[in-house]
Amino acid sequence: MHWSSWLWLFGLGLQTAFSRAAEPVDLLVRGGTLVTMDPQGRVLSDSAVAIAGDRIVAVGPTAEVEARYEPKRTLDAAGRIVMPGLINAHGHAPMTLFRGLSDDRALMDWLRNYIFPAEAKFVDEAFVRAGTRLALLEMALGGTTTHVDMYYFEDAVADETAQAGLRGILGQAMVDFPAPDNKTWEATYAATEAFVAKWHDHPLVTPAVAPHAPYTVSPDHLQAARKLADKYDVPIVIHLAETKHEEETIVGQYQATPVTHLDKLGLLSPRVIAVHVVWPTDAELLTLKKKGVGVVHCPQSNMKLASGIAPIPKMLDLEIPVALGTDGAASNNDLDIWEEVDTAAKLHKVALLDPTIVSARQAVAMATIEGARAIHMADRIGSLEVGKLADLIIVDMDEPHQLPLYDVYSHLAYVTKASDVRTTIVGGQVIVEDRQAKTLDRGAILAEARGYADRIRTLLAK
Amino acid sequence: MHWSSWLWLFGLGLQTAFSRAAEPVDLLVRGGTLVTMDPQGRVLSDSAVAIAGDRIVAVGPTAEVEARYEPKRTLDAAGRIVMPGLINAHGHAPMTLFRGLSDDRALMDWLRNYIFPAEAKFVDEAFVRAGTRLALLEMALGGTTTHVDMYYFEDAVADETAQAGLRGILGQAMVDFPAPDNKTWEATYAATEAFVAKWHDHPLVTPAVAPHAPYTVSPDHLQAARKLADKYDVPIVIHLAETKHEEETIVGQYQATPVTHLDKLGLLSPRVIAVHVVWPTDAELLTLKKKGVGVVHCPQSNMKLASGIAPIPKMLDLEIPVALGTDGAASNNDLDIWEEVDTAAKLHKVALLDPTIVSARQAVAMATIEGARAIHMADRIGSLEVGKLADLIIVDMDEPHQLPLYDVYSHLAYVTKASDVRTTIVGGQVIVEDRQAKTLDRGAILAEARGYADRIRTLLAK
Repeated sequence: MHWSSWLWLFGLGLQTAFSRAAEPVDLLVRGGTLVTMDPQGRVLSDSAVAIAGDRIVAVGPTAEVEARYEPKRTLDAAGRIVMPGLINAHGHAPMTLFRGLSDDRALMDWLRNYIFPAEAKFVDEAFVRAGTRLALLEMALGGTTTHVDMYYFEDAVADETAQAGLRGILGQAMVDFPAPDNKTWEATYAATEAFVAKWHDHPLVTPAVAPHAPYTVSPDHLQAARKLADKYDVPIVIHLAETKHEEETIVGQYQATPVTHLDKLGLLSPRVIAVHVVWPTDAELLTLKKKGVGVVHCPQSNMKLASGIAPIPKMLDLEIPVALGTDGAASNNDLDIWEEVDTAAKLHKVALLDPTIVSARQAVAMATIEGARAIHMADRIGSLEVGKLADLIIVDMDEPHQLPLYDVYSHLAYVTKASDVRTTIVGGQVIVEDRQAKTLDRGAILAEARGYADRIRTLLAK
Repeated sequence: MHWSSWLWLFGLGLQTAFSRAAEPVDLLVRGGTLVTMDPQGRVLSDSAVAIAGDRIVAVGPTAEVEARYEPKRTLDAAGRIVMPGLINAHGHAPMTLFRGLSDDRALMDWLRNYIFPAEAKFVDEAFVRAGTRLALLEMALGGTTTHVDMYYFEDAVADETAQAGLRGILGQAMVDFPAPDNKTWEATYAATEAFVAKWHDHPLVTPAVAPHAPYTVSPDHLQAARKLADKYDVPIVIHLAETKHEEETIVGQYQATPVTHLDKLGLLSPRVIAVHVVWPTDAELLTLKKKGVGVVHCPQSNMKLASGIAPIPKMLDLEIPVALGTDGAASNNDLDIWEEVDTAAKLHKVALLDPTIVSARQAVAMATIEGARAIHMADRIGSLEVGKLADLIIVDMDEPHQLPLYDVYSHLAYVTKASDVRTTIVGGQVIVEDRQAKTLDRGAILAEARGYADRIRTLLAK
């Protein structure tokens, strides 16, 4: 072989070695313990995640991943946990401005005598933007990367979510009574359709149709909402079977319990995200399973409002996917999904006097991969896997309450706090780094919240 | 009047004015919103607490207090909440080194197959010191100023607590089986008496006699423990009526439910701190009330171990004083009393389907003044009042999850986190300032905990 051929081959080898060493990626998170929540349930020590654009392109031992990829930027996670970003599958972000406005009351009393009047008085687009920003700041700092929302002026919620770089399934609320944004059903319907059409192809925002509940939306309107969701192939977010009172109301009006009522109307399908589901019958659980409905469990809201204890262990047995939600800050009173994980793992144990049910691992899964299933996004989020969206968090493990560590799922469920989250990444974008928000202006948001609080206090005092 | 008399009077006036402006105090906490938990339930904006030695000498408007006292040191609490230090009324501090060692198991399985063997293998005085230091660090950072403890080698717990400057009611555990520190009842009894005699007059440590539970201590030994407590006038700390299984065991052995069993033995008195009390009968609640027993509610431990839901609303109706406890980190898995407050306010609402019971204010009181009553120390701690010990905390109110603020008790119960505690003061000594521990060596404590965890993991893996 001529020496030039050798040179050519040598060059090829170099090129291959170089290209293998230099496959460019945007971000590499290295050295952490990866709690992947993947189908094998892998927990990988000293491992790395490589991210190109908004996707995960590699998950593996740090040395291997670093040998193969040339990142624009590297984040060190040594001694820390790297895991999928948390999913807060139910909230009303703008209501964060009503946090603690009125507590320790029955749901209907609270809604009719406090929240609805307060909303009628204060809720406009500017309020929704300010409240959403405050909510997004709290959620991002605590490691939530995807939130499922339902409120008025949801276009503003979507705009703020997209600007902040968080992911959301965002539902325009539909109610039969005059709402802050739309005074008639016709206006609500038109606004919802415009909202869904506008956000339909956004990389971060999935628009949703959100009929509030069986007791606030008539059968005809529920069916119209379903058709709208079908037309645009978007999710339906709805409160369902939250209280015994709701059950009595729906049985009184329609001679069927809430889940059955919706089923009869043809509303249940794999696009439905059903929130609360505290009072289903055993037969209705089978219906939810058969129809592919995802359930959102909001244990702290259900406790505080005394709504009841959802039959989550039965749902898990049936493999109905269950997500966790904080509910709005007016009812919980925070947007801390870690506390929901902790509560989900503890509440059913005491309710059924069985300390072995809803394990720490199952509760963590509800906030990640199972949560993703429940909101019908498991093909894109919920685990650290190649090809999925790069939604992940880095969690500190060196606060006194974090030591010692024997079991990572126990730790994440029973010990880890929102304040332990160091870094939050959504679709490859670092939105919180070293506990500092990068896409949200903390000072301005808190000042704005204080301003609203002053005005609300003043007007309520009158 | 001679001019010299005028001069004398003038001098007297000066002296009075001077002494009024310059009354020396050691510490002044100024500008905060004081949540006093005093009998009038006062919440005082822009107010101050003056501290001389280990006592509160003034509580009032900042301007007035500052005009009257000349402090050696001032802490600014403007925009923050100042409140009584929290009481963690039940724990096993050294077990913090077993945090998350084994979860999601039944109490008896967990105790017999995991905790007792692990204790037999690892627990010695050095372990107890290391675990206690880790616990004290976590508690101090989270705003706990008084902890009630029960464990082996309690003399070491007391020594570490005193060195760290926290307050404690610290109970030497007594069990009938061979314990890590004492192998026979006679040795246990002698060690307990020596412990109680040694710490009897300490300003921070109140020693206690701690027979573990009715199912681990025989009637004779329970009575001996009671006599020992009487002799030295110290509290008795005991687990009581924690599980249905305990009830069945005690009924089987002694033909009486646990509370009645203790009552028959003459054990119940105003020196008793009864922990858990999940399964008392209604008649037994009246007995507890009549005998002046204080109850410690550990809602998260009771949930996680599926022990049951204590009838706290009935106790509150009967004005039985109720404190809150985290229990040991091996069973909860943290020492965060804020989460117990939150859970105490929510759990009974859902258990009784009544959102109006156990108000936010009542739950906060359980961690402060009512907690102090339950551990029989309300004359000295639990509220910001002149003459009480200067145990107080400064809590930040400017994290995103803290805004807006409409009701201070709602906020403290449902929103505030351990990580919001900025400063912790015990008996006038600042033990945490701006989130930094001043009396505990964080780096050394965490390194020591990691060392123990490595050894425990290695031995358990064998």
